[in-house]
Amino acid sequence: MAISKVFVANRGEIAVRIIRAARELGLATVQAVSAADGAMLAARLADETMPVGPAHATKSYLNKAVMVQAAIDSGCDAVHPGYGFLSENAEFAEMVEAAGLVFIGPRPETIRKMGDKARARQEAMEAGVPTVPGSDGVVESVEAAVLAARDIGYPLMIKASAGGGGRGIRVARDETELAVLIPQASGEAKAAFGDGGLYLERFIAKARHVEVQILGDGTNAIHLFERECSLQRRRQKVWEEAPAACLRPDQREALCTSAVRLAERVGYRGAGTLEYLFDETTGEFFFIEMNTRIQVEHPVTEMITGIDLVRWMIRIAGGEALTIRQEDVELRGHAVEARICAEDPALDFRPAPGTVTALEIPGGMGVRFDTMLYAGYAVPPFYDSLLGKLVVHDETRDAAITRMARALGELTVEGLPTTTPLHLALAADPDVRAGNFHTRWLEEWLTAHPLGSPTPSEAETSR
Amino acid sequence: MAISKVFVANRGEIAVRIIRAARELGLATVQAVSAADGAMLAARLADETMPVGPAHATKSYLNKAVMVQAAIDSGCDAVHPGYGFLSENAEFAEMVEAAGLVFIGPRPETIRKMGDKARARQEAMEAGVPTVPGSDGVVESVEAAVLAARDIGYPLMIKASAGGGGRGIRVARDETELAVLIPQASGEAKAAFGDGGLYLERFIAKARHVEVQILGDGTNAIHLFERECSLQRRRQKVWEEAPAACLRPDQREALCTSAVRLAERVGYRGAGTLEYLFDETTGEFFFIEMNTRIQVEHPVTEMITGIDLVRWMIRIAGGEALTIRQEDVELRGHAVEARICAEDPALDFRPAPGTVTALEIPGGMGVRFDTMLYAGYAVPPFYDSLLGKLVVHDETRDAAITRMARALGELTVEGLPTTTPLHLALAADPDVRAGNFHTRWLEEWLTAHPLGSPTPSEAETSR
Repeated sequence: MAISKVFVANRGEIAVRIIRAARELGLATVQAVSAADGAMLAARLADETMPVGPAHATKSYLNKAVMVQAAIDSGCDAVHPGYGFLSENAEFAEMVEAAGLVFIGPRPETIRKMGDKARARQEAMEAGVPTVPGSDGVVESVEAAVLAARDIGYPLMIKASAGGGGRGIRVARDETELAVLIPQASGEAKAAFGDGGLYLERFIAKARHVEVQILGDGTNAIHLFERECSLQRRRQKVWEEAPAACLRPDQREALCTSAVRLAERVGYRGAGTLEYLFDETTGEFFFIEMNTRIQVEHPVTEMITGIDLVRWMIRIAGGEALTIRQEDVELRGHAVEARICAEDPALDFRPAPGTVTALEIPGGMGVRFDTMLYAGYAVPPFYDSLLGKLVVHDETRDAAITRMARALGELTVEGLPTTTPLHLALAADPDVRAGNFHTRWLEEWLTAHPLGSPTPSEAETSR
Repeated sequence: MAISKVFVANRGEIAVRIIRAARELGLATVQAVSAADGAMLAARLADETMPVGPAHATKSYLNKAVMVQAAIDSGCDAVHPGYGFLSENAEFAEMVEAAGLVFIGPRPETIRKMGDKARARQEAMEAGVPTVPGSDGVVESVEAAVLAARDIGYPLMIKASAGGGGRGIRVARDETELAVLIPQASGEAKAAFGDGGLYLERFIAKARHVEVQILGDGTNAIHLFERECSLQRRRQKVWEEAPAACLRPDQREALCTSAVRLAERVGYRGAGTLEYLFDETTGEFFFIEMNTRIQVEHPVTEMITGIDLVRWMIRIAGGEALTIRQEDVELRGHAVEARICAEDPALDFRPAPGTVTALEIPGGMGVRFDTMLYAGYAVPPFYDSLLGKLVVHDETRDAAITRMARALGELTVEGLPTTTPLHLALAADPDVRAGNFHTRWLEEWLTAHPLGSPTPSEAETSR
């Protein structure tokens, strides 16, 4: 089905991204606009806007019925969900299709299947994609645990099956420790959760987050190489790169082809990302989950491949077959993305919405700033704190980080604090420069490197 | 000689470009600032500024002694001349070197040699690079003209050797016309210029301007493919592309290797451009002249090759050898540049400096805006009208022009008129889309497509 008018069922910078891609395909755009978002950049850039309810997202951007009706009422024939909000909601995708519109994303059953972690893990195993080794269920005794542990390998985590959020986790480094810890952990779990059941999982001390970008048309899939997103704070990605500096070419090849196997197995349609943990010490990688949508950090992949992911999402949704062959996808140079958020690094990253009184955007070769900002814009307090993504590309990783530092130095957002100082510090850090980090590195680093309170004049201006 | 501190002997957007490249190489920068330019973006971005005299360029940016002294006084060890001003002044390059500083550009003798059109033509012929066929001197009689014309080919131009600026030119389509026109033209030339001497040159009815980007280290040279800049107004380039859509691959190969031959013959150092006329009807190309400096339109080449030209200029000037091999230079996609000038297209492109009251810069994938603008900046009336260069890159020429139209639509410069409406019209024109144009096409098109007077509200705002 050909598409002619796209409903943008999202907001912020990704809505701008979608509008640009749609416009370059000659398609009209209608921007969903909550009561808080009338002045947003996407509303200014779209051909039309459509009110979708009050500021509170549950009543607007997260309200499936309202969003579908707004798409219908505005005469759209397709819906792009962006990321977050309803982008991985299978029911929403079904409602869009039931209304006779195109959902720009995977088929609803794919969203449902890959959104269920256990089913996704099962699919991965059946596709021959490694998953984090574990006991696959509760271990009934110390003897059973010791046996299972021989397959899993040490160190391993003992987890309470009734626990959650990291509670009740212990790490055993060998059989002796395991034999001691199992009865202890079981007793504590019973006391804490009323259930003494335990399971085991490989402990990766210094895991790196790598993820593979996939593009599929329902039949064929290709990969667009991987990204590394190990620099995280509270499980939120802060700084992303493509490719992953930690991978050898043979590891890259194995990782990326594993992702294509899984994507083709589920008949994946559109853009998707398979997330993995990479154990640098052993060179092993383990599938964790799939994101069945476009990701925030997709521009680093666009920078190294030259392939426009959002354009391809729309083309595939419109019925086109993927015409890019795997051998045509070239990895060129290195790209880095810094998420610029309305948060105050000096105050433990407290969200700090406000009005942009002045804005200067970095430019020059290899620099892209995907943002929702313009001078005079009042950032509303109701949503995610992401203001924009500063993305740079250069011939090597080292040159890209240098370029990032240069571009960060040119970015001026007056009127509210941003996370720019964090990124300037990261770009100058020897471990970041050397690529020596893992998924818990940034939190440790922040403890050791408090981003001190700014002076009063700096508090109002982040340059 | 290693460089540590660069004097930016220019202004406007190219000064910003130079500062960015120097900073990414870890070098300090000092920006030359005339009395009119204290608030310019380059002055804000540079590490230091140095006053170089009054607004009038002959007393500041064009004053060799003042510029060299300012470079010395500010402790710089290198000078980047940008384009225009002193960039192709061999004497200035000599003065810079005599002061013990590095001139970031070719050796002075190369500038002098290639700046002399007759010597450059001679070098080209000796390098086996085709030049526009002509009589190589005055034809003494009708018989001599007829004989010379047999080598030159028809149609040809009869030019008065004492003429200039296109005066006294006649076109002969065959021998009969030539025999009639020679005595006429000679008589008229004698009457007009006091000298009846005539010479002949091939007339190319629909020439296209193509030019080859060269990078050399004094010993080896490579090409970075070609650009096409046929869309000109009053001999000023308005819209540039890379690669040239009019060339077949074999023509591209012949053109680009001819440029490398000439560059290596003269031991070229730095970035340079060889300009040619291309006759689409015959497939022939003819060398016209060389620009021994960075050119305004260099970003389209950077977009299709991923090679940072200004960075390489500095590295080579610092003594590095070129480490890019010709076979490593890949042509990827297509790039288009629109020169955004402070001119009013509705008033015959009258220069229209003013203060930028609001600025919105286009963004997204494959979009770069190299500009001197920021919100609140008062464009001074003393200099060139170029405000910035909107450059886009995409997989194909058609996609790039579509992206250009999208990006132009996002560009907002309030407070003064700009040439954006011209570029929007060009991006939508069927001949531009099809690549059907030549060096006089735009002036003919402007006659047929007057860019009507804007409405009063539009007059103040070019969106």
